[in-house]
Amino acid sequence: MSRFWSEIVHQLTPYVPGEQPKVSNLIKLNTNENPYGPSPKVLKALASEASDSLRLYPDPNAEALKSAIADYYSVNTKQVFVGNGSDEVLAHGFMGLLKQSAPLLFPDITYSFYPVYCGLYGVESTTVPLSENFEINLAEYNQPNGGIIFPNPNAPTGKVLPLADIETLLKSNTDSVVVVDEAYIDFGGESAIALVDKYPNLLVIQTFSKSRSLAGLRVGFAVGHADLIEGLERVKNSFNSYPLDRFAVSGAVAALEDESYFQQTCSAIIQTRESLIGELEALGFEIIPSAANFVFVQHKERDAAELAAQLREKAIIVRHFKQDRIQNFIRITIGTNDECQSLVTALQEICG
Amino acid sequence: MSRFWSEIVHQLTPYVPGEQPKVSNLIKLNTNENPYGPSPKVLKALASEASDSLRLYPDPNAEALKSAIADYYSVNTKQVFVGNGSDEVLAHGFMGLLKQSAPLLFPDITYSFYPVYCGLYGVESTTVPLSENFEINLAEYNQPNGGIIFPNPNAPTGKVLPLADIETLLKSNTDSVVVVDEAYIDFGGESAIALVDKYPNLLVIQTFSKSRSLAGLRVGFAVGHADLIEGLERVKNSFNSYPLDRFAVSGAVAALEDESYFQQTCSAIIQTRESLIGELEALGFEIIPSAANFVFVQHKERDAAELAAQLREKAIIVRHFKQDRIQNFIRITIGTNDECQSLVTALQEICG
Repeated sequence: MSRFWSEIVHQLTPYVPGEQPKVSNLIKLNTNENPYGPSPKVLKALASEASDSLRLYPDPNAEALKSAIADYYSVNTKQVFVGNGSDEVLAHGFMGLLKQSAPLLFPDITYSFYPVYCGLYGVESTTVPLSENFEINLAEYNQPNGGIIFPNPNAPTGKVLPLADIETLLKSNTDSVVVVDEAYIDFGGESAIALVDKYPNLLVIQTFSKSRSLAGLRVGFAVGHADLIEGLERVKNSFNSYPLDRFAVSGAVAALEDESYFQQTCSAIIQTRESLIGELEALGFEIIPSAANFVFVQHKERDAAELAAQLREKAIIVRHFKQDRIQNFIRITIGTNDECQSLVTALQEICG
Repeated sequence: MSRFWSEIVHQLTPYVPGEQPKVSNLIKLNTNENPYGPSPKVLKALASEASDSLRLYPDPNAEALKSAIADYYSVNTKQVFVGNGSDEVLAHGFMGLLKQSAPLLFPDITYSFYPVYCGLYGVESTTVPLSENFEINLAEYNQPNGGIIFPNPNAPTGKVLPLADIETLLKSNTDSVVVVDEAYIDFGGESAIALVDKYPNLLVIQTFSKSRSLAGLRVGFAVGHADLIEGLERVKNSFNSYPLDRFAVSGAVAALEDESYFQQTCSAIIQTRESLIGELEALGFEIIPSAANFVFVQHKERDAAELAAQLREKAIIVRHFKQDRIQNFIRITIGTNDECQSLVTALQEICG
């Protein structure tokens, strides 16, 4: 607390990210990182950026990356926005598109950064409860609003919405921006990028942190109508001319170029997820169907916070959210087969 | 223009950075980049970051870098804030510390991003004219204000204020934050970081883009009282948990460790600046005394915009600002001796 702070700073409730432990002997299943490193081609491209050119600013528009994303998704570069991680892209979206006189709608159980952005930018919001079985019921979003945002698959539940449901929403909700936050889409969902040419109010946000194994590089992007992208560019160019450094641009471009590595690692994670689900069920867990690189689970008899603490004692970290309706769940990131096997063994010891 | 934009987006006048040309055969003296690449030790540290660890998020608090900066400047890590370039640090400063009911004061001729931040965050401001010979007269800042910000050395003039003058200001201005933006301090000024323990309302901002040859890596930082830093952290943690990627942290730490390379390149630039000044004077230019890695000059007879265009034809780019009072100046970044010699030869042809 300080008399030198702006008024807004006193009111903020900052986001708390998952723990990034300093020790390296832990099995880290708490922040939905990819258990596989980036493509070797990405590492090669990155190593070659460690050069004298670093004395020069990067391209402020990151055209090389925008162009690679546009090619990959068969859209125009004017339909692509890039940022320093999808959190930065989201932040500019809240300020530039979602701050309206009517309230923004989002699920009661969702990515917990959304209410933080609302606090930062003074965005009015209304939460729409998930159904009892943790489904987003898009019909309930048919109410006056200044924007709609939800992750697909949702976080931390992992539940995915079919594209047809999203299109139904877009057909009825034409006067405000609909943001689909697809951080986990590559692990089992169908991207709404397929709809951007049809709906000028649709913005789809993705990240290189999960399916592209580049959480440490900080690259996110948005795809939508050129007018929405221009709104984001205006905010970005009033905030930071060069949010993406030379490594970020180069590494992300190389990641998009290695499609087979991407497919292979995503498939491996999906396979591990499905076999982990079977083993967790055998241990007495209820598992929400997941299309993400994590599972959201509760044990029929065990307390979630306690389970998380017991796993931590066995050098395995998972994430527990102290929030109404989900306080008896833990979120487990899909690791390698070996990591998931260690988790199962630990849980057998704890629950057995 | 779009009906989907927030009200603020319509009102923004984004910042326009200096050109980053796609062609590489130009002598680029327009964005104050260092003509010397980063230290070989920095390049080595960066290359080693191109590894599997990129699948993991970086440390959200960038403790390794904060600690290196704290050691370097003999302050506490709680007095250090880091960001994705000093522009991001400035942005959070405008939102978190400088947005007050009384107007922010800054020079009429200065870094042109300041009014852009004011537009983005709705910060009231009053500009204080530089003296006729382009000096910041700090006595004129003794007026009711919600904050004061100026670069030292000033941009685009290159004029530096002595630390004693800044301390005089701090003695009389105790109720609002004073931000000293030291992007160019290492080329001839004395850092106000020496005063942070004495004045709880002083925030000093620096960058790795200029004297550390790392414009392409995007690292900036602020040093001040722990309460001011906490205010910035609260904004940062409500905006983006991980603004610095793994390369940024590692490269910046390595840069601080190679003091001799840093001293050597800064000295070389200062020497080149002094000899360039002599040659420009011989060609009929008036030069504002510079403590930066650029000179701000006007020719007694030639039009500045025209000169810049003629240099561009000769594959040399410098920066010209279409702004009152300085429209007959060009800003020339100090390049290598060879680059500056090419500039002098080109100007001899143009002016001769």
